[in-house]
Amino acid sequence: MAGNSIGQHFRVTTFGESHGLALGCIVDGCPPGLELTEADLQVDLDRRKPGTSKYTTQRREADEVKILSGVFEGKTTGTSIGLLIENTDQRSKDYSEIKDKFRPGHADYTYHQKYGQRDYRGGGRSSARETAMRVAAGAVAKKYLKQEFGIEIRAYLSQMGDVSIDSVDWNEIENNAFFCPDASKVDAFDELIRKLKKEGDSIGAKITVVAQGVPVGLGEPVFDRLDADVAHALMGINAVKGVEIGDGFEVVNQRGSEHRDPLTPEGFSSNHAGGILGGISSGQDIVAHIALKPTSSITVPGETITRSGEKTELITKGRHDPCVGIRAVPIAEAMLAIVVMDHLVRHRGQNFGVQTETPKI
Amino acid sequence: MAGNSIGQHFRVTTFGESHGLALGCIVDGCPPGLELTEADLQVDLDRRKPGTSKYTTQRREADEVKILSGVFEGKTTGTSIGLLIENTDQRSKDYSEIKDKFRPGHADYTYHQKYGQRDYRGGGRSSARETAMRVAAGAVAKKYLKQEFGIEIRAYLSQMGDVSIDSVDWNEIENNAFFCPDASKVDAFDELIRKLKKEGDSIGAKITVVAQGVPVGLGEPVFDRLDADVAHALMGINAVKGVEIGDGFEVVNQRGSEHRDPLTPEGFSSNHAGGILGGISSGQDIVAHIALKPTSSITVPGETITRSGEKTELITKGRHDPCVGIRAVPIAEAMLAIVVMDHLVRHRGQNFGVQTETPKI
Amino acid sequence: MAGNSIGQHFRVTTFGESHGLALGCIVDGCPPGLELTEADLQVDLDRRKPGTSKYTTQRREADEVKILSGVFEGKTTGTSIGLLIENTDQRSKDYSEIKDKFRPGHADYTYHQKYGQRDYRGGGRSSARETAMRVAAGAVAKKYLKQEFGIEIRAYLSQMGDVSIDSVDWNEIENNAFFCPDASKVDAFDELIRKLKKEGDSIGAKITVVAQGVPVGLGEPVFDRLDADVAHALMGINAVKGVEIGDGFEVVNQRGSEHRDPLTPEGFSSNHAGGILGGISSGQDIVAHIALKPTSSITVPGETITRSGEKTELITKGRHDPCVGIRAVPIAEAMLAIVVMDHLVRHRGQNFGVQTETPKI
Amino acid sequence: MAGNSIGQHFRVTTFGESHGLALGCIVDGCPPGLELTEADLQVDLDRRKPGTSKYTTQRREADEVKILSGVFEGKTTGTSIGLLIENTDQRSKDYSEIKDKFRPGHADYTYHQKYGQRDYRGGGRSSARETAMRVAAGAVAKKYLKQEFGIEIRAYLSQMGDVSIDSVDWNEIENNAFFCPDASKVDAFDELIRKLKKEGDSIGAKITVVAQGVPVGLGEPVFDRLDADVAHALMGINAVKGVEIGDGFEVVNQRGSEHRDPLTPEGFSSNHAGGILGGISSGQDIVAHIALKPTSSITVPGETITRSGEKTELITKGRHDPCVGIRAVPIAEAMLAIVVMDHLVRHRGQNFGVQTETPKI
Repeated sequence: MAGNSIGQHFRVTTFGESHGLALGCIVDGCPPGLELTEADLQVDLDRRKPGTSKYTTQRREADEVKILSGVFEGKTTGTSIGLLIENTDQRSKDYSEIKDKFRPGHADYTYHQKYGQRDYRGGGRSSARETAMRVAAGAVAKKYLKQEFGIEIRAYLSQMGDVSIDSVDWNEIENNAFFCPDASKVDAFDELIRKLKKEGDSIGAKITVVAQGVPVGLGEPVFDRLDADVAHALMGINAVKGVEIGDGFEVVNQRGSEHRDPLTPEGFSSNHAGGILGGISSGQDIVAHIALKPTSSITVPGETITRSGEKTELITKGRHDPCVGIRAVPIAEAMLAIVVMDHLVRHRGQNFGVQTETPKI
Repeated sequence: MAGNSIGQHFRVTTFGESHGLALGCIVDGCPPGLELTEADLQVDLDRRKPGTSKYTTQRREADEVKILSGVFEGKTTGTSIGLLIENTDQRSKDYSEIKDKFRPGHADYTYHQKYGQRDYRGGGRSSARETAMRVAAGAVAKKYLKQEFGIEIRAYLSQMGDVSIDSVDWNEIENNAFFCPDASKVDAFDELIRKLKKEGDSIGAKITVVAQGVPVGLGEPVFDRLDADVAHALMGINAVKGVEIGDGFEVVNQRGSEHRDPLTPEGFSSNHAGGILGGISSGQDIVAHIALKPTSSITVPGETITRSGEKTELITKGRHDPCVGIRAVPIAEAMLAIVVMDHLVRHRGQNFGVQTETPKI
Repeated sequence: MAGNSIGQHFRVTTFGESHGLALGCIVDGCPPGLELTEADLQVDLDRRKPGTSKYTTQRREADEVKILSGVFEGKTTGTSIGLLIENTDQRSKDYSEIKDKFRPGHADYTYHQKYGQRDYRGGGRSSARETAMRVAAGAVAKKYLKQEFGIEIRAYLSQMGDVSIDSVDWNEIENNAFFCPDASKVDAFDELIRKLKKEGDSIGAKITVVAQGVPVGLGEPVFDRLDADVAHALMGINAVKGVEIGDGFEVVNQRGSEHRDPLTPEGFSSNHAGGILGGISSGQDIVAHIALKPTSSITVPGETITRSGEKTELITKGRHDPCVGIRAVPIAEAMLAIVVMDHLVRHRGQNFGVQTETPKI
Repeated sequence: MAGNSIGQHFRVTTFGESHGLALGCIVDGCPPGLELTEADLQVDLDRRKPGTSKYTTQRREADEVKILSGVFEGKTTGTSIGLLIENTDQRSKDYSEIKDKFRPGHADYTYHQKYGQRDYRGGGRSSARETAMRVAAGAVAKKYLKQEFGIEIRAYLSQMGDVSIDSVDWNEIENNAFFCPDASKVDAFDELIRKLKKEGDSIGAKITVVAQGVPVGLGEPVFDRLDADVAHALMGINAVKGVEIGDGFEVVNQRGSEHRDPLTPEGFSSNHAGGILGGISSGQDIVAHIALKPTSSITVPGETITRSGEKTELITKGRHDPCVGIRAVPIAEAMLAIVVMDHLVRHRGQNFGVQTETPKI
């Protein structure tokens, strides 16, 4: 219980079900003095929003966020920030069939066994819709990190099915619907998605997320390590089944003489470590990769059981992405931003930059 | 930072300023299966609400709470419960004068020095208005405790100024505007309040809060003791300056032979300890007392300084209680309920009572 | 469970029973660079140690603390500090009688019901002996606060039974066995203790603890308030039944015009608030009072029950203080120091003062 | 700061440096009534211990653990368990050279920049020696899980360099020095290690860890998910750069129709998910894989800088493993056990199984 919070010093707590009245979150621990408007958050919410391209679900969600507290005269006050998104396009009827059947590959069975009941409409709390609030909260962190420390956090699609990118051009990412940094692969991704739609099937994806400009020294040995917290945050994204820092699983077949990054007076001459040594940021780019499973919400019939334990079959109708990985790009950015922000506030203290002309009496 | 949460297993996180758009909170860790409606929460909110009697501030707040998530088909689902109260009667103009002056006895100066700025309207986050969400969250705990365990949590006014109660009649408490359990003292309280209103001054109060039916065994030695957590929760209520468990400060002049509660086969034969031994509940009534300071929001002029440090004077206009202690009765109940609930969930686990007819596969 | 830690940023976790092999603790979150030796900790351990005067128990404990980690070449390294005190004078035989009887006023019954069994020797984990580690950990905090910020934390006995002090002379405190700051009351305390020893009874006490030099701005609204955390820490000391901040329970009969502390360009002109406003330190002295119950370990026979629930009687033999409040003076200092330190680290961040001549690459 | 704890309900906090006086930990939250002796812990400590085979470092550490508290008459009491291992074979002279040079691929540079100084002897706190305490604490969890719930947690080496196992025979694992479950691969591993020793180089490894018998329902959406906590715990092991749950990175090229595990009345018919759906255990085996980097402590010279930032070169002498992954087998088991135990205590409450014949009064 009480599992809906992340972060200790910059703490995000969310609520809301896919088809409930609203989604919301509390961002607690944002330092005072940051200029913040709803538009700052809306940018990333719109990037995550379904219905924006033919490649993602056609379900339409307005995803308009309201800041309810914690900002006064355009600046954060250091108190808790309340954020709210009202659900508008709910269409609960679409989901009536899954009331008594557990969708395979989904959380229906585990939620049911854990809680004794569940909000089955659209997956309820287990729906990826919940990540909208993570994106909103992450946008607060992203703005602070960029404005106050010049830290930039960005992600991109690095693989879908058997199609991998060959190069990274940061300027290319927002030019296509796949957040793909390699323009030469966009057509291949497009073709793969079309094929899957026809087949009524789905595919996994690999996302890479990078934080640039992180100062040396973030992360607390031995358990609250920066890499451990990054792994926690990224594995906690719906559908993620793997997390790598730096070279990740490639290290299994590397030599020590090859892996260790040499230090020179001009800096590290490679970054196999992904910017973290001994759980502490090294000042290099923090690089992580995540693997997202193919969604189980497909029209290919799936074998399953009913609530009373009988054998049955299920087809997931409705509006679903053939590749949920695409929309995970802004989510991964948000989660990494929350972790870096949490460690930054921990490291620098909350009063970083707080100044007042009022004399102390 | 990140200081807006209480409880580890039943965790309440709040947001909202006195004159912002809304107040809200997230109740995380409520077990599934509890029948819960907005009406369950509204009862205590109405007890706390100002403007309900001539003894409390005439400021009117609708305080209508909405449940935004965590309840499905009338029952809690075990996921986080989002609660919202929109602010309706804000009248920001009333507070324009205190923008540049620090009200003595208030948090204006400390918030300003800590954060570099503050939402000065009505005290912003430091306003007692924030406690509305604690009352709403506490009402969830109260309902669960009563329904599932028969635990009853109630408070009353035991002293105001030099007028103390002589007896406790639980049935009397809701019959008067003071939450006074001794009908013979109501007139004296009434007279005191009238006198203070004329003088433009305020008075302190003592509240007693009792939990009946708490099972033996709640509380974790040695730091997360039940009494330590009760003290934390009650001292965290606005204006509280003292907390006692059981005999409290009377123990200073007690003998060991007098204080220790004898155990007999029929139970303890006294309750000097206030229901907690070694930080663990003993099965007796948990009894706590709190002291609330007189509000500093009075029309008697107060000496203070401006934001630039210059000497000035300030009169607090507006609609204020001569005794904030009266309204603290439902707040104290809420806070004690949150603590008991937190320890109960910790002790019993979250799956207490969860059953499903679905077979485990 | 997992209730043996206090503090979030400067976190102290303890282990050990009264008659086990050793007591120990981990101090996690101490900033690097503090000069620290065992002698720094021993001073306060010796002040707490029983057997040092005729007024306290004659049980002898060496209480020699070892620093096992976290200090390198005489300075803290920022990693966790392991502290250990081996138990040397155990005499388990003294306690054989209480194996099957619950001492009234003690934690025997509640521990038994909670855990199903208990280490009955000397109270096991519920023994005040456990506080030795709090004193050791608090000494780390006290040294850091004094050396790096000039913050001084001291306590004294302000009342025992019906004898109260009239004045506070900080230089007097260590001149007598009572930590009494008023030399004129030492004889009265002495007489009271002699009388109690003859009667085989005990008495309660009131301790005052003060932190001087705390900067403005410590404490997080609305739940992690400085006063709430102080109340938590002090109520968590064995035998404490009441906590006051500033004027405490006197506020019940104060007027608002009398209680609020005026601000002037030269500072606050009074300190009724006890140095905390809105949960945040004001820069004034932080003042708290605690009430300690008379120990139940007395030779006056007490009514109780056996493990099988039968009526019996019990006399506590052994070596016990007539007034446990006396020894609580260094414990109260330690607990307040831990809380202030926790909030200071939270506020300033861990890297306060960290500098290295090594260039960042 | 205060980063040396893991777990919220079953919490492990460690201290100790590679060449300090001792390593220790506190296990907080173990339910009462578990039979526990030092021998129970020693088994896994001996499996982790270096110097046991020709394939691991010849450095000898006695690694004899003492239980200092929390166990009475052979059973846990529910209070905090203090564990201690004294360092015996320190040989600090071996490490004098690295005082002024940062070993590439190690935490020397990041610790130095973060803390301003560091205990350079053997890596101090960043040494893998610290994991001895994790193994000891994990052994407590493993015993409880097995005895009370029949949960078994085991790990094995699944790949080293380019040599992968083809099959898993649980009985084979302890028959060779590699924790290899495929007897046909032992010679290949042996040959690889010999080759690396000659070259003075090292190699990475992949470890698989499995929990069998975990009940359905563990894990708290949406952030304290079981998979997120597993990722946190495993990524927090020294040298780990990647974590997979179930099919891990293979999902990137899987179809939804292929990945989702069908539910049948007899159970799931496959386990691509690795036993976790929606962050909650499904009742299937929990399966995780981790990638461990090749140690940087090799005799191949490495390019680095001095504390003053000048270019230099470094050869790591001393006694080091060519493949640190081998010894990570018991560590991975310990970390997974701690996470499962933490969620189990959270789910079932601490009083699971507590019974007393003493009547409640």
